[in-house]
Amino acid sequence: MSNQTKVILLNNRPEATPEHSDFKFIEETVPEIETDQVLLKSLFVSVDPYLRGRMRDIKSYIPPFELHQPITSAIVAEVIESKNDRYVKGDYVLGNLPWKTLLIADGASIQKVKKMDMPLSAYLGVLGMTGLTAYFGLEDIGKLKEGETLVVSGAAGAVGSIVGQIGKIKGCRVVGIAGTDDKINTLKKDFNFDEGINYKTTDDMRKALAQVCPDGIDVYWDNVGGAISDAVLFHINQFARIINCGAIADYNEKEMPTSMSPQTFLIKNSALMQGFIVSNYQKQFLEGIEQLATWLQQGKLTHKETIVEGFEHIPQAFIDLFNGTNTGKMVVKI
Amino acid sequence: MSNQTKVILLNNRPEATPEHSDFKFIEETVPEIETDQVLLKSLFVSVDPYLRGRMRDIKSYIPPFELHQPITSAIVAEVIESKNDRYVKGDYVLGNLPWKTLLIADGASIQKVKKMDMPLSAYLGVLGMTGLTAYFGLEDIGKLKEGETLVVSGAAGAVGSIVGQIGKIKGCRVVGIAGTDDKINTLKKDFNFDEGINYKTTDDMRKALAQVCPDGIDVYWDNVGGAISDAVLFHINQFARIINCGAIADYNEKEMPTSMSPQTFLIKNSALMQGFIVSNYQKQFLEGIEQLATWLQQGKLTHKETIVEGFEHIPQAFIDLFNGTNTGKMVVKI
Repeated sequence: MSNQTKVILLNNRPEATPEHSDFKFIEETVPEIETDQVLLKSLFVSVDPYLRGRMRDIKSYIPPFELHQPITSAIVAEVIESKNDRYVKGDYVLGNLPWKTLLIADGASIQKVKKMDMPLSAYLGVLGMTGLTAYFGLEDIGKLKEGETLVVSGAAGAVGSIVGQIGKIKGCRVVGIAGTDDKINTLKKDFNFDEGINYKTTDDMRKALAQVCPDGIDVYWDNVGGAISDAVLFHINQFARIINCGAIADYNEKEMPTSMSPQTFLIKNSALMQGFIVSNYQKQFLEGIEQLATWLQQGKLTHKETIVEGFEHIPQAFIDLFNGTNTGKMVVKI
Repeated sequence: MSNQTKVILLNNRPEATPEHSDFKFIEETVPEIETDQVLLKSLFVSVDPYLRGRMRDIKSYIPPFELHQPITSAIVAEVIESKNDRYVKGDYVLGNLPWKTLLIADGASIQKVKKMDMPLSAYLGVLGMTGLTAYFGLEDIGKLKEGETLVVSGAAGAVGSIVGQIGKIKGCRVVGIAGTDDKINTLKKDFNFDEGINYKTTDDMRKALAQVCPDGIDVYWDNVGGAISDAVLFHINQFARIINCGAIADYNEKEMPTSMSPQTFLIKNSALMQGFIVSNYQKQFLEGIEQLATWLQQGKLTHKETIVEGFEHIPQAFIDLFNGTNTGKMVVKI
């Protein structure tokens, strides 16, 4: 077979919304693999909003992409050739890998995908970072108990909708906050949420939360920060857990964002706020994937995805994330 | 013996600094004790700043004192008579008890004080709430590891000075923040802190912290909230723990206090902020007292106390807390 690969490089750091000129396609020759390496063929490529952050040249929990180097994201690939004892031709693997049609990886950067009765693309969404983020944030920080009240902001997003569904599986009352009535309907109809609040049409979030959380809030999954999260603080219960997954409200602020001081709320309620990134739990990923897959197979978990076809359409799929045209997880099939 | 007791009632809710007219002395007759009860003679009464909060008529983690009812605080007392199997005459006990010279308690509201080679007053300070607050906050939330950097605000206070000393016992680099050069000297000379910052004479807290915390901050014991705590956020390390013990900077604010949004700092660093009150750990108090007593006996822990004599001087001792005239824990010997 051909040992030529297509590659997508970061050509410019986007100023605002990413554009096609920020990406560059090249072709290169793939060398022979060495001991411990595998040759992979990309099957499904994940495009995610967080990649936008890595295109900026600022320090964060993961380093920025380098200019004129391949962009990387979660990719499901097939082993074409292996000089690593742990992999054989035909294995499916998952890793944070460069945007290439053919690529070389060492064993440490990939893990085997257990072929269950699941489409491979699911390993980039509900069985991938998205699902694992929801699962480990709730397991390790949320520690949901039956009968507790869980509030989720950014609830209609890929992570938020799984968070809420896991909350229902655990026997919690689940309230979602989102920005359109359509999304609120989806939360209740498709994702089994008990209640939803459209924050854009709600004047008084404190009051709205009081109405749908008569027993207070035990766990708050925070995807947004800002004023919505301030309103939640007034309703947290003793020993409440606030999971800081995102702070979209703050991402585009030029000044250092301020909010209500959470300290007194945390002290009065012996409550905690904790941030995390999913890679903290890398060693337990297989455990998480198996649990999520079981729930999927039992019909307890629903997921939505938009699949775009063709390696050359990766940049457009990524750009479309910011137009809000897709529903659920955006994946590119190579 | 006489079955008359002196009692101190809350006569008014103080407007600003408490005054003598806010307290009222009465005498009453102590009835016969019933099954499971004990008759106690107060020996040492703790006066603490947090009691000021309970004199306000607002909801907090503990309910406010009632007007015209006895004020309560931590008291070390001697068992005079017992109809409870767990206590005999002569036992020393500790409890959150009313300001009375003689009083009745049931077994559930007190616990035995193990008479070690310690003055009984220590059970109200380093072996009491003060020490236990420091101990359990660090054990359960701080989880100090050798070589880590611990920053303490309100470091010269009763709790802060013990926090710092435990940090040194655990092999940490300890930095204290306080408001006078005298206090900074005390931290370094008497309490073994590595470094101190006088925030009142420091223009740029972020820079000052960077200088004394070259390896960043792993654990932050927060007694103050506000701008000092904002500055700390810029220096927290991966998996940092922020222990919210107090937020003095916010206590007297009339508007809802705001501060920098901590969310992005917590997410970027997979860090946590957690509030607590010491009574969460009530079941483990004996374990904590034994550890603190061991450190005291080994000379690893130093404590300071100011002892005032006489039941009738309790109000003055309490009022003096707000004049800053005392050093270390303020205790009244009956």
